[in-house]
Amino acid sequence: MVNYPNKRNTYHKAAASQSRRGMSLEEDINTSNEFYLKEDSAVIHKKPTPVTIVKVDYPKRSAAKITEAYFKLPSTTDYNGIYKGRYLDFEAKECVSLTAFPFSSIHEHQIRHLESVLRHGAVAFLILRMTSYEQDYLIKAEDFLNFYKTAKRKSLPYSWIQENGHPIPFRYQKPCDYLRVVDEVFGL
Amino acid sequence: MVNYPNKRNTYHKAAASQSRRGMSLEEDINTSNEFYLKEDSAVIHKKPTPVTIVKVDYPKRSAAKITEAYFKLPSTTDYNGIYKGRYLDFEAKECVSLTAFPFSSIHEHQIRHLESVLRHGAVAFLILRMTSYEQDYLIKAEDFLNFYKTAKRKSLPYSWIQENGHPIPFRYQKPCDYLRVVDEVFGL
Repeated sequence: MVNYPNKRNTYHKAAASQSRRGMSLEEDINTSNEFYLKEDSAVIHKKPTPVTIVKVDYPKRSAAKITEAYFKLPSTTDYNGIYKGRYLDFEAKECVSLTAFPFSSIHEHQIRHLESVLRHGAVAFLILRMTSYEQDYLIKAEDFLNFYKTAKRKSLPYSWIQENGHPIPFRYQKPCDYLRVVDEVFGL
Repeated sequence: MVNYPNKRNTYHKAAASQSRRGMSLEEDINTSNEFYLKEDSAVIHKKPTPVTIVKVDYPKRSAAKITEAYFKLPSTTDYNGIYKGRYLDFEAKECVSLTAFPFSSIHEHQIRHLESVLRHGAVAFLILRMTSYEQDYLIKAEDFLNFYKTAKRKSLPYSWIQENGHPIPFRYQKPCDYLRVVDEVFGL
């Protein structure tokens, strides 16, 4: 369990840990999205990592090779798409802390993006994996933003997450089956 | 006008060419999107170019540098977002030919993506810049796909584009003001 540095045995859930071992939240969401696409229930994709490309080699008879590029700060969330005719938008984060999710993990741009899409009628949320507890939560963007804008602290306490977050079930084919939770939470 | 190799003076439109000189369709759409975002009428972004990152250097005290990466085929269209509560999805292409837009310019993945999002209720379309005529057209994904699937030829004839495409106005702050056309064509 090298990925879970804060892992405590008291919070160990045997079933979940056996299935999820070594899989990142991103991999689990991508697997779920592929399944949603295959069963034709939604079209949701992760956006590519934004990079600034500086140098490209074009060797003869083989593929163009990027030889100098840099990571860029994302200006939007990582995932969006369409589900039941609605525009859906979310950001996914893993949190190793036992006590709180630090706001520094979300860029200011992404906060503004969530506010914008909400104003335009999006189904918007965060998916937060509390790795130490091996539990994924869906948090409505509205709830998160209300707390974010009024909080004196710079993190989301675990107690708040437990109270306001919606646990996301783990399933074999959809290891992060967030659309089931979207149905309930947003009444779709 | 180095970007317009097939430019013919007979098709020259002075006003448009003076304003658009040297700007690519992508730049014009990005400028328009920034304006839509600023006036808060829509949230639409270009997705980053998908690349497979192979090697990254982490020099001390400076930004991570990608030293080996390759371009990947896109699995979706380049643009999506939300407008008037609707999920909006489109691909943008420049066409230098005077006679037809070749289907080879659109990847099979992107065709399937347009079909999928349409089934789920998206406002989906192509933006086609006929560079030789200096005219941008919005083409409904539905119309394009109907032609694509039944056509014996492997391109979209210019006559078809003129008949079925919807001219997109050029404005100074929104050099490709496609949302005005979306309003009319999709009745939003």
